[in-house]
Amino acid sequence: MYSIDQLQDLINKQIAEKQYPDTPSELYEPIQYIMSLGGKRMRPALVLMACDLFGGSVMKALDPAVGIEIFHNFTLVHDDIMDKAPLRRGKQTVHVKWNENVAILAGDVMLVEAYKLLTRVDDNILRSALDVFSTTAAGVCEGQQIDMNFELSNGVDISGYLEMIRLKTAVLLGGSLKIGALIGNAPEEYADYLYKFGENLGIAFQLQDDILDVYGDPEKFGKQVGGDILSNKKTFLLVKALEIAEGIDKEELNYWLSSESAEAETKVQSVTQIYNRLGVRQLAEHQMSQFAEKALSALAKIDIPSERKDTLRSFAERLLIREN
Amino acid sequence: MYSIDQLQDLINKQIAEKQYPDTPSELYEPIQYIMSLGGKRMRPALVLMACDLFGGSVMKALDPAVGIEIFHNFTLVHDDIMDKAPLRRGKQTVHVKWNENVAILAGDVMLVEAYKLLTRVDDNILRSALDVFSTTAAGVCEGQQIDMNFELSNGVDISGYLEMIRLKTAVLLGGSLKIGALIGNAPEEYADYLYKFGENLGIAFQLQDDILDVYGDPEKFGKQVGGDILSNKKTFLLVKALEIAEGIDKEELNYWLSSESAEAETKVQSVTQIYNRLGVRQLAEHQMSQFAEKALSALAKIDIPSERKDTLRSFAERLLIREN
Repeated sequence: MYSIDQLQDLINKQIAEKQYPDTPSELYEPIQYIMSLGGKRMRPALVLMACDLFGGSVMKALDPAVGIEIFHNFTLVHDDIMDKAPLRRGKQTVHVKWNENVAILAGDVMLVEAYKLLTRVDDNILRSALDVFSTTAAGVCEGQQIDMNFELSNGVDISGYLEMIRLKTAVLLGGSLKIGALIGNAPEEYADYLYKFGENLGIAFQLQDDILDVYGDPEKFGKQVGGDILSNKKTFLLVKALEIAEGIDKEELNYWLSSESAEAETKVQSVTQIYNRLGVRQLAEHQMSQFAEKALSALAKIDIPSERKDTLRSFAERLLIREN
Repeated sequence: MYSIDQLQDLINKQIAEKQYPDTPSELYEPIQYIMSLGGKRMRPALVLMACDLFGGSVMKALDPAVGIEIFHNFTLVHDDIMDKAPLRRGKQTVHVKWNENVAILAGDVMLVEAYKLLTRVDDNILRSALDVFSTTAAGVCEGQQIDMNFELSNGVDISGYLEMIRLKTAVLLGGSLKIGALIGNAPEEYADYLYKFGENLGIAFQLQDDILDVYGDPEKFGKQVGGDILSNKKTFLLVKALEIAEGIDKEELNYWLSSESAEAETKVQSVTQIYNRLGVRQLAEHQMSQFAEKALSALAKIDIPSERKDTLRSFAERLLIREN
């Protein structure tokens, strides 16, 4: 079996060597650009790990794995337009470096390219792999729409929030694992357990993201701590706080949410103090543990020697105790 | 065999009955909306006709045919954002009726939906049908990018223009026919001839579009005659005129291209008169005939009883002698 680092190397090499057509350059340069900005390469690693878990050929899983990463980056390019985000991984977003039209069209062709790479699987699993991918892709779009709706809504509750992050983030982790398992010729049942592992891990991962944004170590976090607070983003912490806050806490929280001219540091500190008083960090951590446990119990149901699952388990641990 | 009208009825019924998920409604209502606005339904009709030509089951081709129409409408939704178009088929465009973010995301999910429907073919042609579709889809995106580049370029020549319309318009007609032929279990060679038929027909169709925009009968055209002239759109007529105009014609043409405050009717009349003096309409019609002939000669190479090809031939005639 391969180590995580070996798999990441394979992926990074494959992405770096990938050739795109020369023309029209306005269409293909942005793709090369966004793909070169790096990132955790978490999803393609999951494809390869799942394939490897069942003794499949990791080399055969490489193209579909890169297809999944291109799909993920397509969603980032389009989401960044919608969110009017100036930066992605510390560099200019595609719609800023070029323009919105280029970003729309480059994203479109990335989705097509993702499908092209996903079809590079054996005939016997072509249909099932594509079904998983299409269902996943539609789910991610639904998640993004629900997330945009949340921005304008005052009625978001925790179950709605969890469903949103399940669609926007978690199904793609599940889908990546399931596709890798199919390539590795896993039995359907085991492929489904891996999907569940990935889906629950993905929800835990996003909850961790929400926590890190407020409680991350500024030295290690890599982004501005408190960014979600400043943009009034409906995270688990905020949704939970709005649900349980009463009296003065509630008033104060609503004050900060509606204050447009607040000094950034003051707002972040004040809202964090409310979160602390309400104990929403602990509630989020508890929720996160529950999803992590669900993930691990799905993994446990796969009846293969436990040590073969070590790579996936340590990958999951890495994700959930990360600092950035 | 089915008549064109019978096939159109099947398609319209299938599109009207198609169900989308209820939520998130912001994502799926725009899809239902744009698909309900009608249009020629030319591409799905080509899928069905090609399948029927080889005695295949038209019912089996219906889902992929609708997939092609959804793909086509996805390109319209995204192109309309890029072109800042307020109207489509006389109704508000999706980004105007909702907003740009909704239009981006609804388009994305339409592309996924198109792939879903395209996979509803028999196992033995699944890979080849998807390959044709992906190549076609990437080509359409390239064509749109080249078209956007042309807006900012002064150096467009006729061969570049023809290549742009081949990609933006013609390959999808070819791809629709080839996919229909594959579903009808046509031999690969015949499927390729049908592709060539569609591709050349598509170029002829777009040249006809260019001609109609200037020389169409205002009573029958359905859009404002001269729209392309008013927006300085690089059509065959304009590119050709810029290529051959000399002396006073050239000066006058450049004057109208750079004049931003010209009265609309005066500009249309004046540029049309230059076109008339240069004879670019006849040149466009000649070019159109050449592509139509190429199309028909590709069709002729398919060795099946000539009367089976009547439906496709009359469809082609209808396209090329239309008035709107």
